Amino acid sequence: MKKIFFTPGPSQLYPTVVEHFQRGFKENIPSLSHRGKQFQEIYQDLDNGLRKLLRVPKGYHIFIVGSGTEAMERTIQNCVGKYSFHFVNGSFSKRFFVTAKELGKNPKSIEANSGQGFDFNTIIIPEKTELICFTHNETSSGVMLPEKEIAEVAKKYPQMLIAVDTVSSAPYADLDYRLIDSVFFSVQKLFGLPAGLGIIIVSPRAIKKAEKLLERGISTGSYHNFATLLKFSEKRQTVETPPVLEMYVLEKVVGDMLSKGIKQIRTETEKKAKLLYDFLDAHKIFSAFIEDNMFRSQTVIVVDVQKAKVDVKKKLSEKGFIVGSGYGEFKEKHIRIANFPAHSVEDVKKLIKELNLF
Amino acid sequence: MKKIFFTPGPSQLYPTVVEHFQRGFKENIPSLSHRGKQFQEIYQDLDNGLRKLLRVPKGYHIFIVGSGTEAMERTIQNCVGKYSFHFVNGSFSKRFFVTAKELGKNPKSIEANSGQGFDFNTIIIPEKTELICFTHNETSSGVMLPEKEIAEVAKKYPQMLIAVDTVSSAPYADLDYRLIDSVFFSVQKLFGLPAGLGIIIVSPRAIKKAEKLLERGISTGSYHNFATLLKFSEKRQTVETPPVLEMYVLEKVVGDMLSKGIKQIRTETEKKAKLLYDFLDAHKIFSAFIEDNMFRSQTVIVVDVQKAKVDVKKKLSEKGFIVGSGYGEFKEKHIRIANFPAHSVEDVKKLIKELNLF
Repeated sequence: MKKIFFTPGPSQLYPTVVEHFQRGFKENIPSLSHRGKQFQEIYQDLDNGLRKLLRVPKGYHIFIVGSGTEAMERTIQNCVGKYSFHFVNGSFSKRFFVTAKELGKNPKSIEANSGQGFDFNTIIIPEKTELICFTHNETSSGVMLPEKEIAEVAKKYPQMLIAVDTVSSAPYADLDYRLIDSVFFSVQKLFGLPAGLGIIIVSPRAIKKAEKLLERGISTGSYHNFATLLKFSEKRQTVETPPVLEMYVLEKVVGDMLSKGIKQIRTETEKKAKLLYDFLDAHKIFSAFIEDNMFRSQTVIVVDVQKAKVDVKKKLSEKGFIVGSGYGEFKEKHIRIANFPAHSVEDVKKLIKELNLF
Repeated sequence: MKKIFFTPGPSQLYPTVVEHFQRGFKENIPSLSHRGKQFQEIYQDLDNGLRKLLRVPKGYHIFIVGSGTEAMERTIQNCVGKYSFHFVNGSFSKRFFVTAKELGKNPKSIEANSGQGFDFNTIIIPEKTELICFTHNETSSGVMLPEKEIAEVAKKYPQMLIAVDTVSSAPYADLDYRLIDSVFFSVQKLFGLPAGLGIIIVSPRAIKKAEKLLERGISTGSYHNFATLLKFSEKRQTVETPPVLEMYVLEKVVGDMLSKGIKQIRTETEKKAKLLYDFLDAHKIFSAFIEDNMFRSQTVIVVDVQKAKVDVKKKLSEKGFIVGSGYGEFKEKHIRIANFPAHSVEDVKKLIKELNLF
């Protein structure tokens, strides 16, 4: 039986991924030296592609790391002497906060219940804050923060740095990078690659902050501190041997996405999300976990399945539709449906048809 | 023209790698949830396989990280409050030392010139040392430290922890793990995989040390500190989404190596190394950079090519033999030849034949 993976990452591979891997093997990409010219060209092409796809401002840097989770650590180490401030409304924003604690910083936070957004107008961020941390899309609960609100906060506190976790929303997320100092994501979500690669995009301000921390004698990490990442990325190299084949395939997928057009990808994402939410809002058994339309994720749709009184995930999997279980305490109560570029409108319609049989 | 990569990593892929990738794609491995049962089984099989192949003692833990370079950082963070001691005789052992500095520690070292080993009997390690760091095989210069000497040092200083970088020697390295507290390697060297995965094997003593550091309020890192790595690895999970497909393929290659037999792999490695060194010792133009037989690497053979007065690397590449250039200051003066399990005796003989034409 052919399976479709609607899991929120790792997920369905982007349709061209396997063929790019095959070609990569044929061209000996995995055996290339990461100190050679051919690797530099792959890195350069990837850099160009990502800049174009995400409209990365000039002067910003694109770094290769191991995962989105690593990117959290590197962002905190390099942008925070002592005080970060976190918008926490689920497991991944919480992890960002805990990361700061574990690294010996003194993070503050505003907490919302899982499944809730924030009342941005009422939040006052402490004066000493060096870095404000957002999780654009909470993969755990399916809450997406409006890009506009993130921008408003950034404008209100221009002296603070801004970090945005877009692990499960890039490249759908339409952020104004000029207002942001660290944006990061991993490749196994919307880019539809096998896991094993993270990307951080950092502003010149973030680089300066890292330099200042070093001057003050604060450790910003070793091989993946911003200074070292910058030194190597400027010559289109990486500090360590990176996942060269993954970078090659990512560059190809970014190319495919550019051919399709980011506007088209965003429109399709919203169309598919609307199909799902409209279905859920009208359904008797299933309902969307996120009620407030303003905070409904377009990329990870969380469904309350408690009324079904059967194992919905299992039943769906018997039909070849693999969805994610609920996160943490919601393991049995929710299912999570990824809505990524790898999922066609047809796939989503088929899934809805199947859900409608419950 | 068919190419053979004798580069010291990334290198020639192990002969079965592409076919394992194909199968992995067919079985939807990259789309599997890293919180699911199927992933746990892959992790468990990999753990079992590595334990068997490397004779890892009971009670030791196998952790998944991003690279050998990351493993250096994690080892220092979790095994050193203040004082590490480093055997430095090339770029990678130097990096281990610098990593400790960058992480705010106070490392000491004994330095040998590139291409030299150490006179182990005369070295006195400062009393306060918490961790002694060895680079078993210096990929930069082709010096391999005898396993016996590492063991002697470990026995002489039983109160200190021992770390051994086996990035370019595992699984050839025949170490007594019972004397060692952190051994790490990456997969793009002797295991012949595409880069993107690192393995750390740690002793119960190392775990205890990390716990003590945490108790003393010293940051041991965040998502990849030993405590967190242990918590997840015990349930056969990883903290972040790991390179699942790479782990799957590594498990398969470890299986292939077990079928072949580690003894056979070691014998063949030594046989091929002997072919190369015998050729070099008898040759008029080329010579082995490492003169002392005791320190000659069996896995990365460094050749002094200065007398050739031509670009040996380029000439070889025109015939399909891709070798590594010299490292750092030796870029033009040396070539580096990897002797990994992916390289057959026949491949090595062909390369020697080609070298003999100069």
